[in-house]
Amino acid sequence: MTLSYIAKYADIDLDSDIDIKIRGIKPLHLANSGDITFLHSNKYLKELKNTKASAILIESKYVEYLPSGVIPLITDEPYLKLAYISKLFAPKLNIKTYKPTLGKKSDISDTTKCGKDVTIGKNTQIMSGCYIGDGVTIGDDVLIYPNVTIYHGVTIKDRVIIHSGTVVGSDGYGFAHTKDGRHIKIYQLGGVVVGNDVEIGANCTIDRGALGDTIISDGTKIDNLVQIGHNCEIGENCLIVSQVGISGSTKLGKNVIMGGQSATAGHLSIGDFATIAARGGVTKSLEGGKIYGGFPAIDIKLWKRTQAAIARLLKK
Amino acid sequence: MTLSYIAKYADIDLDSDIDIKIRGIKPLHLANSGDITFLHSNKYLKELKNTKASAILIESKYVEYLPSGVIPLITDEPYLKLAYISKLFAPKLNIKTYKPTLGKKSDISDTTKCGKDVTIGKNTQIMSGCYIGDGVTIGDDVLIYPNVTIYHGVTIKDRVIIHSGTVVGSDGYGFAHTKDGRHIKIYQLGGVVVGNDVEIGANCTIDRGALGDTIISDGTKIDNLVQIGHNCEIGENCLIVSQVGISGSTKLGKNVIMGGQSATAGHLSIGDFATIAARGGVTKSLEGGKIYGGFPAIDIKLWKRTQAAIARLLKK
Amino acid sequence: MTLSYIAKYADIDLDSDIDIKIRGIKPLHLANSGDITFLHSNKYLKELKNTKASAILIESKYVEYLPSGVIPLITDEPYLKLAYISKLFAPKLNIKTYKPTLGKKSDISDTTKCGKDVTIGKNTQIMSGCYIGDGVTIGDDVLIYPNVTIYHGVTIKDRVIIHSGTVVGSDGYGFAHTKDGRHIKIYQLGGVVVGNDVEIGANCTIDRGALGDTIISDGTKIDNLVQIGHNCEIGENCLIVSQVGISGSTKLGKNVIMGGQSATAGHLSIGDFATIAARGGVTKSLEGGKIYGGFPAIDIKLWKRTQAAIARLLKK
Repeated sequence: MTLSYIAKYADIDLDSDIDIKIRGIKPLHLANSGDITFLHSNKYLKELKNTKASAILIESKYVEYLPSGVIPLITDEPYLKLAYISKLFAPKLNIKTYKPTLGKKSDISDTTKCGKDVTIGKNTQIMSGCYIGDGVTIGDDVLIYPNVTIYHGVTIKDRVIIHSGTVVGSDGYGFAHTKDGRHIKIYQLGGVVVGNDVEIGANCTIDRGALGDTIISDGTKIDNLVQIGHNCEIGENCLIVSQVGISGSTKLGKNVIMGGQSATAGHLSIGDFATIAARGGVTKSLEGGKIYGGFPAIDIKLWKRTQAAIARLLKK
Repeated sequence: MTLSYIAKYADIDLDSDIDIKIRGIKPLHLANSGDITFLHSNKYLKELKNTKASAILIESKYVEYLPSGVIPLITDEPYLKLAYISKLFAPKLNIKTYKPTLGKKSDISDTTKCGKDVTIGKNTQIMSGCYIGDGVTIGDDVLIYPNVTIYHGVTIKDRVIIHSGTVVGSDGYGFAHTKDGRHIKIYQLGGVVVGNDVEIGANCTIDRGALGDTIISDGTKIDNLVQIGHNCEIGENCLIVSQVGISGSTKLGKNVIMGGQSATAGHLSIGDFATIAARGGVTKSLEGGKIYGGFPAIDIKLWKRTQAAIARLLKK
Repeated sequence: MTLSYIAKYADIDLDSDIDIKIRGIKPLHLANSGDITFLHSNKYLKELKNTKASAILIESKYVEYLPSGVIPLITDEPYLKLAYISKLFAPKLNIKTYKPTLGKKSDISDTTKCGKDVTIGKNTQIMSGCYIGDGVTIGDDVLIYPNVTIYHGVTIKDRVIIHSGTVVGSDGYGFAHTKDGRHIKIYQLGGVVVGNDVEIGANCTIDRGALGDTIISDGTKIDNLVQIGHNCEIGENCLIVSQVGISGSTKLGKNVIMGGQSATAGHLSIGDFATIAARGGVTKSLEGGKIYGGFPAIDIKLWKRTQAAIARLLKK
């Protein structure tokens, strides 16, 4: 796709004598030659200075910080324009059925539908009523129970178990907002990588990344009805109990335990071997090796003392 | 169906010399000629006086307030009798497969099943493993991902996106209770209307109305694992984040934001441009234009002051 | 399977001159001749003394309490070894389609797949896209909506209604942990029994028992997106509202009401006619006949007084 086409689609003026091919959209720090990027907050000015993107959606006041050679698409609303142009990069879905590349001793139910270019390893079983999207890769010794949906471009590694009703790779919840209060979809162009020995319970939802990937690392075990937002990175050997919600771009270290119905806000980091008690609501990044509880989640000893102190005060 | 048949089914005495045809069940204020209605609480006496229903399930003590011409079916337990007779009005489900009426450039996977009288607009894609019930209408440019279930009688307007595993039109949670503690199903006879440009995430549940419809208005965006109860009316351009629960008959104005895992009790009203912070639990109606948090949800500034004050008190 | 094979698989020394046939794994108090059992905590020493098992995974220090005739498999990590050997007893899943035994006037959609030895009663309807696993028994007058998954070995009794997307019999969340922080799956070998007149909403998850069964008793009504953990026993005529989570092995008496988004910890007992208000979080066993709220859940009058007292203190 040409930059001039993108500019026209987004209704942004671009000098007609410059035009280049654009391959994809990436955030500032991941963009390379051939990518378009965007600056939607002055928090990212440092990353702006080092970007390797070929073009950028940017407000005029920040153009002076732009490295030479990056073509600016100047707009008052770079995030909204990002939303509009993201649609251009979304893969066209197809509803046809294709034959997957299937390893030895693997078996797929005849009511499970595969998209184009699906690769499945050895000794893997996929039961009835599943959907495996275009370009999905599934490893060896995987077991997928009935009525699971794997969206296009997802990678599932070896010895993974996925229970019924779970959806891997649905769109993250990303929208830009117009001044008159409408919400414009940011097409979710990343994927999901599910590591070795991961087990995912029933009716979970694991969203694909917006631009990069959502990652579930090796050995993590997820219970039922869990929500994992776009671009989360879940470390190795985590335990994520039923009805947990992890908001977008939050990172869990290794062996983190999230108790039932606990949750985190987005863009946080939780250290290795941290435990969040059931119902805990994490509102800021937490260091590893400790147990937290309550909402907002604090050191659980402090939380328990607080509960006891309230009880004492009330008796007076 | 005749009123005498209904009376007999519900084990209620009815003078044999009067009989009329009954078309449906409606609440007092919506009932018209040909409808049967019910009075299950004296809160609705005002509506009783103005009802246009042809017949009513009613306790004998309230018969004196009945407009002339409304035939009373007298019972000590009108709500329980409503539950029994609701079954008579439930459509018979069929498991046969029919060919939908399909607009230009629309495409349905051959593993998606349609009921009777399904109408689908132009340029709409319905992927594999879905079920589209009897009498469903789907608009133009709609995208329905795999393994979505749309129950009978639901209306989906234009440019709607529905992610995998979501269920639209399942029965609301409505029961009448017998004196010995059993729960009798109130068959859910309403529908669901999903407006233009709505996006619904994965594994959501949106219940059909009990008698009227559940409504999701234009431009509203719903994240994953969200529950919307029967007869809710969600305004335009709302943002409803993951794992939210909205109880039956609650109304949201336009551009209401419900943060992750927040919830409301039933029969409430939340004003335009209100924001409920993540985890907020709404227990009474709230005016628009403000931010609320905590459980019970209060003005978020007050909630934050409360948290800080508790912390200070504890230090003493 | 022979005990020597099991011992070898679990890498435990066993005198070669003794060997017996092992039929299954059972907890201490349920094991009979032919079963292997395990002792993973000294809390169960009393049950150890009365066990009728034929063999046991046990630490050497507890062997002296063993009834005569029970063959010990001595290990420092009996629970971890249990996890390893549980895999030996898991039924082999098959993805083939079989014809169920079907009662009069029952009807199954041709896109619903049945495993081996499925028995379905009279006047039962199973809609499209469902999966009914090996050995499932379904009663009379049952209605199963599209895209429901019933795992192998589940029993569904008469007049049950199950809404779309619900999963019955998925694996409980059970793992043993290695010293280096990995989680080893305890294969879930129990089943689920769903009683007469139960209704289960959309996108619920009801896990199979680890060794015994998960039980939903007659007349209980479950709303949408509810999680019921392995080995729970839900009494008769309970009402379980949307997004509730009930942790493993918890027992509800009869006519217990769990409000929306409420939850319980595991291994608790809640008495008959108890009500847990919406959002209530139950952390210890509760007696019946009372209303509880808050987290940790307490008598709701006390909880409301606490809220009011905090408000008063803050005004000072």
